[in-house]
Amino acid sequence: MDALPRLRERLAELADLGSLAMLAEWDQLVMMPVEGGPDRAHQIGALQRLTHERATADEIGQWLADLQEADLDEIEGDIVRIARRDHERARRVPGQLAAERARAGAEGQEIWQRARADDDFDAFAPALARNVELARSAAEHLAEPGQSRYEALLSDYDYGLRVAELRAVFGALAEGLPPLIELAGGRAPSEPLRVPIASQQAAVAGMLRRLGVGRESWRVDVSTHPFTVWMGRRDTRITTRYEEIGIESLLSSLHEYGHGLYERQVDEALARTNLAAGTSMSIHESQSKLWENHVARSAGFAEVMAAELAAGGFQIAPAELHRATVEVQPSPIRVSADPVSYPLHIVLRFELEHALIEGELEVVDLPQAWSEGMRRLLGVEVGSDRLGCLQDVHWSGGNFGYFPSYALGCLIAAQLWETAEAELGPLADDLAAGELTGLQRWLGEKVHRHGAKFRTAELLERAVGAPIEVAPFLQHLKRTLSEVYGLTLS
Amino acid sequence: MDALPRLRERLAELADLGSLAMLAEWDQLVMMPVEGGPDRAHQIGALQRLTHERATADEIGQWLADLQEADLDEIEGDIVRIARRDHERARRVPGQLAAERARAGAEGQEIWQRARADDDFDAFAPALARNVELARSAAEHLAEPGQSRYEALLSDYDYGLRVAELRAVFGALAEGLPPLIELAGGRAPSEPLRVPIASQQAAVAGMLRRLGVGRESWRVDVSTHPFTVWMGRRDTRITTRYEEIGIESLLSSLHEYGHGLYERQVDEALARTNLAAGTSMSIHESQSKLWENHVARSAGFAEVMAAELAAGGFQIAPAELHRATVEVQPSPIRVSADPVSYPLHIVLRFELEHALIEGELEVVDLPQAWSEGMRRLLGVEVGSDRLGCLQDVHWSGGNFGYFPSYALGCLIAAQLWETAEAELGPLADDLAAGELTGLQRWLGEKVHRHGAKFRTAELLERAVGAPIEVAPFLQHLKRTLSEVYGLTLS
Repeated sequence: MDALPRLRERLAELADLGSLAMLAEWDQLVMMPVEGGPDRAHQIGALQRLTHERATADEIGQWLADLQEADLDEIEGDIVRIARRDHERARRVPGQLAAERARAGAEGQEIWQRARADDDFDAFAPALARNVELARSAAEHLAEPGQSRYEALLSDYDYGLRVAELRAVFGALAEGLPPLIELAGGRAPSEPLRVPIASQQAAVAGMLRRLGVGRESWRVDVSTHPFTVWMGRRDTRITTRYEEIGIESLLSSLHEYGHGLYERQVDEALARTNLAAGTSMSIHESQSKLWENHVARSAGFAEVMAAELAAGGFQIAPAELHRATVEVQPSPIRVSADPVSYPLHIVLRFELEHALIEGELEVVDLPQAWSEGMRRLLGVEVGSDRLGCLQDVHWSGGNFGYFPSYALGCLIAAQLWETAEAELGPLADDLAAGELTGLQRWLGEKVHRHGAKFRTAELLERAVGAPIEVAPFLQHLKRTLSEVYGLTLS
Repeated sequence: MDALPRLRERLAELADLGSLAMLAEWDQLVMMPVEGGPDRAHQIGALQRLTHERATADEIGQWLADLQEADLDEIEGDIVRIARRDHERARRVPGQLAAERARAGAEGQEIWQRARADDDFDAFAPALARNVELARSAAEHLAEPGQSRYEALLSDYDYGLRVAELRAVFGALAEGLPPLIELAGGRAPSEPLRVPIASQQAAVAGMLRRLGVGRESWRVDVSTHPFTVWMGRRDTRITTRYEEIGIESLLSSLHEYGHGLYERQVDEALARTNLAAGTSMSIHESQSKLWENHVARSAGFAEVMAAELAAGGFQIAPAELHRATVEVQPSPIRVSADPVSYPLHIVLRFELEHALIEGELEVVDLPQAWSEGMRRLLGVEVGSDRLGCLQDVHWSGGNFGYFPSYALGCLIAAQLWETAEAELGPLADDLAAGELTGLQRWLGEKVHRHGAKFRTAELLERAVGAPIEVAPFLQHLKRTLSEVYGLTLS
């Protein structure tokens, strides 16, 4: 009866292969000579095929069957439970279909890149239609009793999340945010900030150093789109990017720091098991959004950032810096959206991808539906598909059900922050001092250490005693806008 | 009958896994935060186990059996032939023994590192004895009829190489080199060169640029020990190191360039097959030694290097630079040895490792045998085991049979150079102009494009019409010493 050690050995192998996949991707985006691309695609493909084969192998089913009646301790029980869930899900989609989906996603991304450059939705539409069709087929295989197609896809990123929950919170956002935008949006925008890149680099380094980012177990590099990878708890790599205008480098490095810290504080006893990673995309995004929205965009931490910029040779008043991080300026672009508009970009994408998957929207009608939604939710005219439904990579790669986590992350971050302040006391002084070890520890205790043991709803219930809610986020925004614009908001 | 496509698919997968292993190693030595080490060991271990499992799988034997009578074109025939050879070799060693050897090698390296730091051979001896014992066991499984144990190990690096050949050429070196050392060694040594590191960096970059090293498909980084990896033909990564004294950075970057160029010029039709890599360690080393000994250490190319150093702000006469690259100064250390002494360090290691594997030398007697050999071959007193038999990593990792390739590389490089000049005309002007595309093309045609199709002896017969010989190397050294020291040598 050695089913458990064998299962654990296989899970450790899958964890190692996952780390290697992250390395291959990080290297491609940060280090690889550009002409290495075609060979790298082969290498990543080989890793994916092997991982799929080892994760869906028959012997795992046998081990799980042998463990049906076994006497397991708590961690072992969780390992087996999650292994069973993942193994069953992975085997539900026929290999042929999984391979076709992967291929369509890779090709779709290439076609999308050209179509976006040419602002030519028609060139992209057939690839998108193919992705939608294949995702619908996969969803039919994946769906558990009572699950809709879209919910089946959603479970890839957030196991067990329901459309009814999304409708409830996204409906509340669609109602609560536009009035805030209208109030704040009437104000004259500030001049855009121009911070020398060397000063931004110095500030990013200084800020991260204060949060414990050291060379011995972190890397901070530059890439076209910021992202985070982790290869074990002691090798965390974040990236940022530097622009002539604005301070996205500071915000995005704190955002990525949040992802990195989550993975580093997972209980060491779970290392190289299937519980060793963050539990869902929405909880992961809550960690990045917490450091972005509640730390980097706070009045207190603006003092730290201003001091670090000053050390890098650029003088700015903390209040001016703070205002620049939260100023409301609706635009058609998601990734550069202000914190008030941002969730509405997600609400739109959720509505549209849900309709595509459930057969209520045809691909050909997407551009118009996008423009109407942007007008309705954000009062923004899109102008072109390049700035509209061609702006994001996700659907071109066949990823439907991913977008909601971005907005859920904002909501969960606000809930966690509220609870943290209730339990630790107000954090304003810590923010101003750049001394956040108390917060780091609290997040480790409440969220990080559990790894993938609890799904989103369970983890949230334990951490804040409630399901996903909109009120703390709206409250947080109102407080922020009051500070910055001097508005009185109820 | 789809045995061939299946075999090719598996070989492509193994090539991809090999590239990922190179990436993991490169990253560890160049980029990885130091505390990522333990997890990286797991990741590399997983990759090795998977690779071994996929390379030795039963189905490959079935495909090869199905292909016994198949009608194959030339490339296919070579692919199947080499696949059969490698598969049979890989399956000869029992899995348990292979795993034990790998573990003993990893542990041996750790023990060696401490023992070397402490200059404590006794602390290392048990680990070395274990490595020797396991290598002997593996050799007994590996040996083909008529092969000695040592030859069986040698075949891991240079398939089919015989001890008699090694004895012949190494005997000639042991006879021919000491008189040259004695003649040249009597001269007063020059002052050691001190080149600012920024100037070295500029010169390395400028020199490599002239040879076609561009950012689009190469990387040049820094590591403790210089090395080269390749992840396909268009992603070549070399490293070098910079020291306050000497110009090793220039020599080692040309050395590594030679390894890189070899892999880049393998026929594209062989990509992702088992023929896509260099054919043996000695041919690989001949490529690096050709660029190190015959290019970087030439009087002509010294003009190029001096010009590049000047562009980097450091003035030196080409003749002085040339002299610094070839000056004879026997010392106990292999890696920094001059080009005349270098092969004698290898002759000693060959004699000793051969005796260890064939049971003619006990580990406990190694330090004394080493000291005696150094005195006999190089006239050098070792002084301590740290500077003696503890200096190299190879044996600590269980690698026996690897050392000879370093010296064979020197010999083969001289043979290739002689033939290249016979066919292309004298290369002195090209060297002085730093314009070596003719040489690059010639190497591609004669050596590189064939990949692993021909073993060392076959490739050499085709390229230079002879087996491995010592005379061209000795001739080259005599010519060089005549130039530099004004000696008249017959």
